[in-house]
Amino acid sequence: MTKPTATLLISCPDQRGLVAKIANFIYSNGGNIIHADQHTDFAAGLFLTRLEWQLDGFNLPRDLIAKAFNAIAQPLNAKWELHFSDTVPRLAIWVSRQDHCLFDLIWRQRSKEFHAEIPLIISNHPHLQDVAEKFGIDYHYIPITKENKKEQEIKQLELLQQYKIDLVVLAKYMQIVSADFIRQFPQIINIHHSFLPAFIGANPYHRAFERGVKIIGATAHYATADLDAGPIIEQDVVRVSHRDEVDDLVRKGKDLERVVLARSVRLHLQNRVLVYGNRTVVFE
Amino acid sequence: MTKPTATLLISCPDQRGLVAKIANFIYSNGGNIIHADQHTDFAAGLFLTRLEWQLDGFNLPRDLIAKAFNAIAQPLNAKWELHFSDTVPRLAIWVSRQDHCLFDLIWRQRSKEFHAEIPLIISNHPHLQDVAEKFGIDYHYIPITKENKKEQEIKQLELLQQYKIDLVVLAKYMQIVSADFIRQFPQIINIHHSFLPAFIGANPYHRAFERGVKIIGATAHYATADLDAGPIIEQDVVRVSHRDEVDDLVRKGKDLERVVLARSVRLHLQNRVLVYGNRTVVFE
Amino acid sequence: MTKPTATLLISCPDQRGLVAKIANFIYSNGGNIIHADQHTDFAAGLFLTRLEWQLDGFNLPRDLIAKAFNAIAQPLNAKWELHFSDTVPRLAIWVSRQDHCLFDLIWRQRSKEFHAEIPLIISNHPHLQDVAEKFGIDYHYIPITKENKKEQEIKQLELLQQYKIDLVVLAKYMQIVSADFIRQFPQIINIHHSFLPAFIGANPYHRAFERGVKIIGATAHYATADLDAGPIIEQDVVRVSHRDEVDDLVRKGKDLERVVLARSVRLHLQNRVLVYGNRTVVFE
Amino acid sequence: MTKPTATLLISCPDQRGLVAKIANFIYSNGGNIIHADQHTDFAAGLFLTRLEWQLDGFNLPRDLIAKAFNAIAQPLNAKWELHFSDTVPRLAIWVSRQDHCLFDLIWRQRSKEFHAEIPLIISNHPHLQDVAEKFGIDYHYIPITKENKKEQEIKQLELLQQYKIDLVVLAKYMQIVSADFIRQFPQIINIHHSFLPAFIGANPYHRAFERGVKIIGATAHYATADLDAGPIIEQDVVRVSHRDEVDDLVRKGKDLERVVLARSVRLHLQNRVLVYGNRTVVFE
Repeated sequence: MTKPTATLLISCPDQRGLVAKIANFIYSNGGNIIHADQHTDFAAGLFLTRLEWQLDGFNLPRDLIAKAFNAIAQPLNAKWELHFSDTVPRLAIWVSRQDHCLFDLIWRQRSKEFHAEIPLIISNHPHLQDVAEKFGIDYHYIPITKENKKEQEIKQLELLQQYKIDLVVLAKYMQIVSADFIRQFPQIINIHHSFLPAFIGANPYHRAFERGVKIIGATAHYATADLDAGPIIEQDVVRVSHRDEVDDLVRKGKDLERVVLARSVRLHLQNRVLVYGNRTVVFE
Repeated sequence: MTKPTATLLISCPDQRGLVAKIANFIYSNGGNIIHADQHTDFAAGLFLTRLEWQLDGFNLPRDLIAKAFNAIAQPLNAKWELHFSDTVPRLAIWVSRQDHCLFDLIWRQRSKEFHAEIPLIISNHPHLQDVAEKFGIDYHYIPITKENKKEQEIKQLELLQQYKIDLVVLAKYMQIVSADFIRQFPQIINIHHSFLPAFIGANPYHRAFERGVKIIGATAHYATADLDAGPIIEQDVVRVSHRDEVDDLVRKGKDLERVVLARSVRLHLQNRVLVYGNRTVVFE
Repeated sequence: MTKPTATLLISCPDQRGLVAKIANFIYSNGGNIIHADQHTDFAAGLFLTRLEWQLDGFNLPRDLIAKAFNAIAQPLNAKWELHFSDTVPRLAIWVSRQDHCLFDLIWRQRSKEFHAEIPLIISNHPHLQDVAEKFGIDYHYIPITKENKKEQEIKQLELLQQYKIDLVVLAKYMQIVSADFIRQFPQIINIHHSFLPAFIGANPYHRAFERGVKIIGATAHYATADLDAGPIIEQDVVRVSHRDEVDDLVRKGKDLERVVLARSVRLHLQNRVLVYGNRTVVFE
Repeated sequence: MTKPTATLLISCPDQRGLVAKIANFIYSNGGNIIHADQHTDFAAGLFLTRLEWQLDGFNLPRDLIAKAFNAIAQPLNAKWELHFSDTVPRLAIWVSRQDHCLFDLIWRQRSKEFHAEIPLIISNHPHLQDVAEKFGIDYHYIPITKENKKEQEIKQLELLQQYKIDLVVLAKYMQIVSADFIRQFPQIINIHHSFLPAFIGANPYHRAFERGVKIIGATAHYATADLDAGPIIEQDVVRVSHRDEVDDLVRKGKDLERVVLARSVRLHLQNRVLVYGNRTVVFE
């Protein structure tokens, strides 16, 4: 088994000595850095960094690290997160009727590609109940209409709380989650079946076909109040031709969607994604 | 030297026996087909085909082929074009201040990747005069302002006529060509520096950076009256990351632009592109 | 439901009139061609074609088509296959301990991406028995050692016969199938976890890491007596960097392997692959 | 104009505190780090890093930096290089008869994509003399035969010295440079027209065609005594099909070769490539 590590994700106004100060904090406490990466956005005047070090041999006990680092972070005016690699995040997967992303996420979790648990599936359709049963995951069927959306979202939020969910993965959920919901539970990754910002909204494959594009794409992003406009984590594309009808775009797109979504979820679970403004830094 | 061929590009309402009828026309006249490809757009009820055969040994003299084929095409209600491979098309390249596509097109013509002549460069800037001179191509500096655009387009049209131009290549011309111009000279290929339909219009790289995309693209299409909305011939993409600033997108994009534009021009020159509606069939 | 079609895959020495003759056969019998594609290998002097037409309205009864076409094919010295789209091919999937390709193939079959049945899984390990049970597929555990290989292959051949298998898919089977076996059952698609012909044989990811490549690949091919040297159906690649250790190559490679294998199986099932010499023509 | 920077490329045995120690050296001397990246090869027990900082405001004068850093590097048992961004490296481009990489490298240098000078072209053929003249670059025609190779390499080495060349770019030179030459002048980047390690040696496109691959590639690497086996800097690929004959592979490959070579040269010129063993770390 790999040894537990701590990870700091930090963003702060750029200034001299940041790398030295932060590295010193870890070194002076006996930490062994196994991953360090940083990025400076010169236009924004922002320094962003990710540091991961082994907890083995680190002099500070876990519960004191945050407090100790805060003494360094505050004068730098830094925003930061601290994560431990042996914490197992809990995912809720939200689906509609399509099962390809669901199957894929479950397979990756089972095969340890994801260090996470998947205790909960939520759907506005009953269709994928049997997949949930096959893999022993609770399935909650919560149909959505214009009329009941508000109250159903309250139920959804309660489930997230009850199951202690850390991250919602919209795995082709095909419903808009309200701005109000996102405010209360902002940790949501969505897969959109187009190369954003092309084809925002409904039926992107039909519209891609109509436009006669030669390449289609998929985009994973954090959900925000603006539809399909949140910070992009990952995108990928595949070539199509005049021989591909809409059904072919859908089929080819599925292979993209599940890979792009899975990569994004994995990067998020490994605390490799830092959001600032409407952008992400992905520390690969 | 390769032997001369004739190429038919045909589109007509779908019906039984089209392949047989058209193939028979060539076979019964002693032609040897070296490329045949077809596509049926079932939604549109349209059959589209490209046939290329060796003129050597073909019983019909060149100047009678069109008339003879018309007898077959008319009852099928077909639209068609006939081309001979030893006709050398004449290109006008339109540029602004950037030279990467221009250099690339000239290099390909010199190295026989393009079977074409490039007698004319038109620009709204004087900057690339020296490139034209290096390669012995006439360069016409035609500056465009809001006020003079109409009269300058008349000059441009005269030059196209004078130089007997078959195809205009907008190689990062960075100016909108008027609907009126396109009506009079519709054979125009444009390269747009985005993955259309994302980032139509000005400054696509800046907007791609703002949006935080993880992939950028380039699109070659036939120019139409609607900006960046013409039939797409070819697209390609390249991966970018948070490390790439706008300048890096521009640099990486240049490598895309010239390859995507060159592929499109080559496909067009080989009569492999068939436009219908706002789509293209590319017979590769 | 889509209407049944017939498909001819033909290869014969190149000569004038082939397209016309073959198209006439279908047209004169009232067939409606929905896909026709051809390729000439000029170096080999070979004409290769695929024709698919609707059986609805075709004048010849199914069981007479082969005989009737033979009258045309024989004088052309043609090799050909005839397939009907409503025949459902039967697949045997052979696995070792890795489950990603298996899961993927089953998912595609369930979701109708593959028009096929999967009645049989054969493995040299007992590990994936539970996957087979989950999806109600028979699982035969046939361990292989140097000593028992010959007799075990006899068992395997019996199973293929008993289950009326049309195609064996080596879905990361990790064992060499003997030349003798392949002679008796030649319809075998294998996925090799490298960009062939690089890294033929064992441990391609380790060797790719050692070599310091910047891109890894996967290759699906028909199995032949020569290891990893059979006709290639499909390949794909993914970018890696110095940050990727062998485990990362393995993980990234899995996403390639399952997509490349699935595309190949689908192309084969749709009778779009024509093998000649050690090459394939893929009529997409 | 961008402000001058200093860059350290360091590799040393992994140990605690390396990031802190090296960052402190720069910070304590008032340096502003604008790029810092590191990588640990756990298998090799090696720490590799690249640091770039602004010389403006740095307290140490340029000519003392190396000595001062050596005091830190020696106890760490580190190998390191120090570069200043305002030093303009001098390239010699070696060509044979093909001009695509040559044209491309010249264009990039002219358009400031490369911060370098190109004072010298060496060729074993006289064919590209006119390109050299067009751009005012000295061209030395040094024909190579089995008999004269040794003495001609002495001439080549003299030219490199005379022109104060820092980097030789083998831009499709198509000749093997001797181990002895490489020992005396090891800074050589070569472009090989295959996806190494596939198709080492002569005629890779012919052999790729023979093998029936569905993707071809190009590889840029540092030249070593073993043919096509040096540390890989960059690779890229393009899809091909049965329709592509050898000539098409050559044509498509050219577009790969020039981009892959150009990226590698640029990375090298920006001191972003660190070689260890037979591998590279590319700090992008």
